[in-house]
Amino acid sequence: MRLRDHIALPGHLPTGPRNSVTDVPGVQVGHATIQGGGLNTGVTAILPAPGNLFEHKLTAAVEVINGFGKSAGLVQVAELGSLETPILLTNTFGVGTCANALIRRAIAESPDIGRGTSTVNPVVCECNDGTLSDIQAMAVTEDDARRALAAAGPQVAEGSVGAGTGMVAFGFKGGIGTASRRIDLDGGAHLLGALVLANFGRAGDLILPDGRRPDPAGRAEAEKGSVIVVLATDLPVDQRQLARICRRAGAGLARLGAFYGNGSGDIVLGFTTHNRIPHRPAADMGQVDRMADTRIDLAFRAACEATEEAVLNALCAATAVTGWNGAVRPLLSDWLNSPKNGRSPPHQ
Amino acid sequence: MRLRDHIALPGHLPTGPRNSVTDVPGVQVGHATIQGGGLNTGVTAILPAPGNLFEHKLTAAVEVINGFGKSAGLVQVAELGSLETPILLTNTFGVGTCANALIRRAIAESPDIGRGTSTVNPVVCECNDGTLSDIQAMAVTEDDARRALAAAGPQVAEGSVGAGTGMVAFGFKGGIGTASRRIDLDGGAHLLGALVLANFGRAGDLILPDGRRPDPAGRAEAEKGSVIVVLATDLPVDQRQLARICRRAGAGLARLGAFYGNGSGDIVLGFTTHNRIPHRPAADMGQVDRMADTRIDLAFRAACEATEEAVLNALCAATAVTGWNGAVRPLLSDWLNSPKNGRSPPHQ
Amino acid sequence: MRLRDHIALPGHLPTGPRNSVTDVPGVQVGHATIQGGGLNTGVTAILPAPGNLFEHKLTAAVEVINGFGKSAGLVQVAELGSLETPILLTNTFGVGTCANALIRRAIAESPDIGRGTSTVNPVVCECNDGTLSDIQAMAVTEDDARRALAAAGPQVAEGSVGAGTGMVAFGFKGGIGTASRRIDLDGGAHLLGALVLANFGRAGDLILPDGRRPDPAGRAEAEKGSVIVVLATDLPVDQRQLARICRRAGAGLARLGAFYGNGSGDIVLGFTTHNRIPHRPAADMGQVDRMADTRIDLAFRAACEATEEAVLNALCAATAVTGWNGAVRPLLSDWLNSPKNGRSPPHQ
Amino acid sequence: MRLRDHIALPGHLPTGPRNSVTDVPGVQVGHATIQGGGLNTGVTAILPAPGNLFEHKLTAAVEVINGFGKSAGLVQVAELGSLETPILLTNTFGVGTCANALIRRAIAESPDIGRGTSTVNPVVCECNDGTLSDIQAMAVTEDDARRALAAAGPQVAEGSVGAGTGMVAFGFKGGIGTASRRIDLDGGAHLLGALVLANFGRAGDLILPDGRRPDPAGRAEAEKGSVIVVLATDLPVDQRQLARICRRAGAGLARLGAFYGNGSGDIVLGFTTHNRIPHRPAADMGQVDRMADTRIDLAFRAACEATEEAVLNALCAATAVTGWNGAVRPLLSDWLNSPKNGRSPPHQ
Repeated sequence: MRLRDHIALPGHLPTGPRNSVTDVPGVQVGHATIQGGGLNTGVTAILPAPGNLFEHKLTAAVEVINGFGKSAGLVQVAELGSLETPILLTNTFGVGTCANALIRRAIAESPDIGRGTSTVNPVVCECNDGTLSDIQAMAVTEDDARRALAAAGPQVAEGSVGAGTGMVAFGFKGGIGTASRRIDLDGGAHLLGALVLANFGRAGDLILPDGRRPDPAGRAEAEKGSVIVVLATDLPVDQRQLARICRRAGAGLARLGAFYGNGSGDIVLGFTTHNRIPHRPAADMGQVDRMADTRIDLAFRAACEATEEAVLNALCAATAVTGWNGAVRPLLSDWLNSPKNGRSPPHQ
Repeated sequence: MRLRDHIALPGHLPTGPRNSVTDVPGVQVGHATIQGGGLNTGVTAILPAPGNLFEHKLTAAVEVINGFGKSAGLVQVAELGSLETPILLTNTFGVGTCANALIRRAIAESPDIGRGTSTVNPVVCECNDGTLSDIQAMAVTEDDARRALAAAGPQVAEGSVGAGTGMVAFGFKGGIGTASRRIDLDGGAHLLGALVLANFGRAGDLILPDGRRPDPAGRAEAEKGSVIVVLATDLPVDQRQLARICRRAGAGLARLGAFYGNGSGDIVLGFTTHNRIPHRPAADMGQVDRMADTRIDLAFRAACEATEEAVLNALCAATAVTGWNGAVRPLLSDWLNSPKNGRSPPHQ
Repeated sequence: MRLRDHIALPGHLPTGPRNSVTDVPGVQVGHATIQGGGLNTGVTAILPAPGNLFEHKLTAAVEVINGFGKSAGLVQVAELGSLETPILLTNTFGVGTCANALIRRAIAESPDIGRGTSTVNPVVCECNDGTLSDIQAMAVTEDDARRALAAAGPQVAEGSVGAGTGMVAFGFKGGIGTASRRIDLDGGAHLLGALVLANFGRAGDLILPDGRRPDPAGRAEAEKGSVIVVLATDLPVDQRQLARICRRAGAGLARLGAFYGNGSGDIVLGFTTHNRIPHRPAADMGQVDRMADTRIDLAFRAACEATEEAVLNALCAATAVTGWNGAVRPLLSDWLNSPKNGRSPPHQ
Repeated sequence: MRLRDHIALPGHLPTGPRNSVTDVPGVQVGHATIQGGGLNTGVTAILPAPGNLFEHKLTAAVEVINGFGKSAGLVQVAELGSLETPILLTNTFGVGTCANALIRRAIAESPDIGRGTSTVNPVVCECNDGTLSDIQAMAVTEDDARRALAAAGPQVAEGSVGAGTGMVAFGFKGGIGTASRRIDLDGGAHLLGALVLANFGRAGDLILPDGRRPDPAGRAEAEKGSVIVVLATDLPVDQRQLARICRRAGAGLARLGAFYGNGSGDIVLGFTTHNRIPHRPAADMGQVDRMADTRIDLAFRAACEATEEAVLNALCAATAVTGWNGAVRPLLSDWLNSPKNGRSPPHQ
């Protein structure tokens, strides 16, 4: 069940065919889930495009909404405006290991990395799943990272899966969610998709698009955890434009009731599959396509809406997980299905 | 009429006594309104503290949510973390003139400015009221700025007044609004207040705290205009903390349905009256009070809530204005008072 | 006399034909000088390109090295990556008036500004010439701004002229200077030029390219004042690339012995005449040329070298000015011509 | 041999007793060097203070001069202004493993990390030593990190040691260097020290403080590699002030002839041992000492000078290393000792 099985979203931009980040041509997502022995964790891989990413980089940008986070690779993405590896999501203490896996993968594909040419910048983001998983075990292995990469495809499992296995949001079970929007420009349709690792939001603060405020049984946890938003698009945008689009993901989070709590590492990473950047350019200059800023509000709105819906899809899809210390979190799907919580009113 | 005359806000932090930025001790606000001859514009002055601000500066910070704006003084506030003049709000083409007025005021108070000591950094922010006022007239004078400063006091007129006279938000008549929140720490209560110049938001996008979505008769304007948020507090915070608090004003704007449109200059300027900074320090170092980051979520929540409510207070208080070209904008108060728009449902 | 009349610069990139910012095709510079009655101030105008700049904007970027400055327009340039007016340089208290002049100029050229279309973002930068000029007089008028704009042409007067009339650098008389570098790429030569308003540097800290350290008679002033660097180029770069190029101007300042003192507003503003941005695009997307990052070190080096040389050209060209309070500053040209200061050693 | 054994530095601020980062009370440095089998790499540890750093964090700041780098932990340092682990320096592909070692160390000291309290932010910076070491081997182990930490003490070995074993700068053999400056304020002396991992600078670009320009035999390599600068101080500064101090390290690099090349990850990380930040504050607010900005030029100058001298100390101390592919780099000490390169002229 996804959000739209519970609530209508009138006034929103149209979605892509799957309402998924993989609506953007070439984008694939895979998971490796790790459970048992006190563990509820994993790795989620976003392959932004087929082929050798180091040789044909993507234009990319970062928005740090609240920097209480331990991601790898963001500084270089911000400076150079390029992405040259897949993106891995995992738990806070799995970042170093996932980065190592990405380095080895890049060397295998481009054996002159660090020898005949420059090094490679692995990109890994994380949330803390310590409430439901024994994070001190540092259990994520390079093999787990490779499993997630190998599993990547166009279907995105949502909820308590991959890096989302042990995540919690707004006091409910959280995890992985995705959504997309279609943007119609001269010359055809473009897509913008969000994939989120939702582990943020104070219990009691969640606002649904229909105005209802689901309360997970009176919990009063601080807004901690974190949220990672990956925005993918095929719009012809440069890094400045993409960074501005990423910033609007924060508006989507805020509509859900988040205020970017002190302990929440709220990070947005965006890339476009348009305008690939060759590692070894054939010429000193080339041509790139660029969308006019006068039309960029469509992309801003898409980023805001897709982020909001992706988080709610994560919450709707999440299944029950019993934590290493016996902790459990209620499911938003149960709340939505309970008659006592009312039904979504007709939109005004 | 203010928002709370129409809608309850359960779950929010308590307000200050006036629910106004002037709940922060020492803060005063004044307006100069300019109308007639095609003009609907003016100046709003925020006096952050009594006395000579150049000699005893305030800790200050800036958050540029979307930099499509022409404010004065922000670069220096960001670098030095200090505010040394009152803050003036006006229309886009009045910034230079208001800055000149602030320079002359500072020289009158501190005659060695630019001679025996450094120069002064006037702070002016703006929105574009060109829909309802003839902005090409460049009608704001230094006298208007002085009138607003002279009128400053603890009562804040809201709506179509001062710099807010000709502003528009979410397709409704906008303008000036304010709100505040109380924050209880060890050793006593502190206050955080927001004053907004609301001139932003696409018609049809507004979301009320009760989930209703007021539509100003099917208009479809782009999100343009701008919004200026001034946050005042007496919390003992340093610039890093204050900048983080300012960022959370953006969450308040997003809850209203804004996505920080391309053409909207969305700027937040914050200051604290705690920890004044002497222009001529008596010693090479001193002591300052600092709130623990572990408690800062209270200030984040306060900034988000006060900003959201201040915008809605601006919309609720706004009175009808006929534009230089005959344009008018509907009033949110009319929408709220119309039986056909329903009543606020009980909060869930 | 310019720097190269005194000192050789082996190992540097080649210069443009005039070794001036106006080597970049279309760039013009003009001055209005204000002297007498205690005044030694003025306005310098940089016209980045012919024609209506609002309708055909330039790609632009900003680097704030040290934000103790009161410039106008930088926030919007940073956000939108575009320049839509000429750039004016003046004294600290002339910014508002120069901004007003630029607004009126833009409205005259594009009468729908603020009516049928958005407003305009005037760009003005400043240094404090209070040591040699009565800055409290606020003497710069809109007519002075217009005079500087009207005087613009390909020949750049250097030294104590225009905005540079009353400036001081490293204890010597400072002012306006310029220099350029040629960058050879596939398909032809490009140019990068710097124009500086030099009013920075502590007396005794200056380092010449030949290693000599001219001391203006044992003065021990704090590093204050400021420096504005305008970088112009015709390289096909986007805003991210241009911002990185601007950052390298700071390396040029540091080579001179500056450490970006607390009271020094050190601002770099860059634009390229390549890839003009239409205010009213004919289509939702277009193509732009972009230089490969793999070649950008040439532009970095050019920015560093041209900035360093432009400052020294300002110092070499500066002529004696008697301040409003009788203050004078020695001339670097006198120091260089004095036999007791040695001659430039052969470069190692 | 250090720089001052070759060249006098008149006009500089006084140094600390060791002219080392460890002049700052409590700071210790240790190395683990890895050589043999094609490897010339290692780890360098900076212990910023004794005791449990997670429980008693240090105020810290970051300046990214050029973000072509893969460091860990910088985003959180920038947001929270705090450092809660030692700092490790290593090669580009050793970052993940060093981060893992720091996580395990922190858990060992504070067993509730990731369980009863938040996670920990390991800080690791890197340069690419691929010219002289087989970086694809990914040879750095967690044990190597622990060895470097265990070896930490007040004496800092310089040159081809620890993380500096395989580094190259300006075409010469580079590595680890350090220097310090004393800053006298009311109430006593303070210290600011720099430790650098020098792996940057184009061959032929180096400028010595006496104006000589050592050329390593006509090499013409691009400015690549990177440089990490760690600034330590006991000055009472807040994060805003510390970030500004860090920025001035870039001026020191530029004086050496660097222009922050595209491929050079130039990162500055600063911390102060003053004003420790408790992880579990006893009260909602406390008092911190703060230096007046009016005196901060002393710290700016100290950061610039100490960085410049630390790099030159690295170059002077570096010993010959034979690379995995037989590559060698000349020694600056040989150049300085060669009669044909002249002697340092008396400073002017």
